[in-house]
Amino acid sequence: MEMSSKLLERAVTEISQLPGIGKRTALRLALHLLKQPEEQTQELAAALRKMREEIQFCRQCHNISDIEICAICANGSRDKSIICVVEDVRDVMAIENTGLFKGNYHVLGGKISPIDGVGPGQLTITSLVEKVKQGGVKELIFALSSTMEGDTTNFYIYRQIKGLGVVTSSIARGIGVGDELEFADEITLGRSIMHRIPFENTLKGL
Amino acid sequence: MEMSSKLLERAVTEISQLPGIGKRTALRLALHLLKQPEEQTQELAAALRKMREEIQFCRQCHNISDIEICAICANGSRDKSIICVVEDVRDVMAIENTGLFKGNYHVLGGKISPIDGVGPGQLTITSLVEKVKQGGVKELIFALSSTMEGDTTNFYIYRQIKGLGVVTSSIARGIGVGDELEFADEITLGRSIMHRIPFENTLKGL
Repeated sequence: MEMSSKLLERAVTEISQLPGIGKRTALRLALHLLKQPEEQTQELAAALRKMREEIQFCRQCHNISDIEICAICANGSRDKSIICVVEDVRDVMAIENTGLFKGNYHVLGGKISPIDGVGPGQLTITSLVEKVKQGGVKELIFALSSTMEGDTTNFYIYRQIKGLGVVTSSIARGIGVGDELEFADEITLGRSIMHRIPFENTLKGL
Repeated sequence: MEMSSKLLERAVTEISQLPGIGKRTALRLALHLLKQPEEQTQELAAALRKMREEIQFCRQCHNISDIEICAICANGSRDKSIICVVEDVRDVMAIENTGLFKGNYHVLGGKISPIDGVGPGQLTITSLVEKVKQGGVKELIFALSSTMEGDTTNFYIYRQIKGLGVVTSSIARGIGVGDELEFADEITLGRSIMHRIPFENTLKGL
């Protein structure tokens, strides 16, 4: 794609390095910014720089935070003995939105994935194991996505903390609430039958 | 969507103001930038600012350019008497890619669209009419998309330059090369029959 402006070309090249954004979309976005008041571009650029320069990760759970200890870890009314292990900050937000979990989190920052060059060393696993060794943790809930990488990561952590007296659990897999059985994949449907729960349990609210 | 970081929230808000990018995608992009080396964000921000601050529009054709007169207008071997009227810089790039047009362009910067609040005054129509009045232009080729707005814009320009001795033409509408007739819409197929061309013309190369 040859462009009449090197400035435009450079902006398009930079934008198209974002995941899921090709050259064509990048060009559309750049042209959109050129049509808008200059302040919009200035504010976008400033927000990106400021975020990248100043953002911090909570020292306890590694969640994204503006301060040393995030609001969840600093909240005294939450149960520090239950830790939900998640992949990234989006999972924390999703679980927080349910309003049903009152424990703490541990954000791994990814999953073990040799294909993408992500080993255990790049994740916050050591910090999680340290936390368990220090005591006070009763249960770890694995809430990674159930892919090969997620399962590998779960198992890697499980082996590290085995014998430290911590209960480990996994979030329930099954047919989504409101989903039609006929459209569910066999593995999910299979697991939902294998891991069936007493009917009385379904009557307690959620 | 409540976030644990105001810096992240601000960046997501700014990114999601781009067209076609919702809060969820914006969050994915912001988290991607946080995982990448800081230089990537710095370069993206710098490229956006620099583009917005320094970009110029060609004084003759209003194409995006880094200099006062764009490379196409400055090219002496192109036919200045034929002007192709297009909506924006993407159309210039698309036509240039065919390698078949050797005239000049005139970039309108949009289409007349009362719904979107775009009147003739926001487009570069006056400058086009001036160019025609100054003489030297033999033909205007309308290459706007054939929507209600495109047709309105074409007709508005047509009325302004009528009687100035300029030939006006429209790019051919019809079934795309390689397309199946059965999947074409009725209007396109109808036009392609109405505006059929002598078969011998199809034998000349393209």
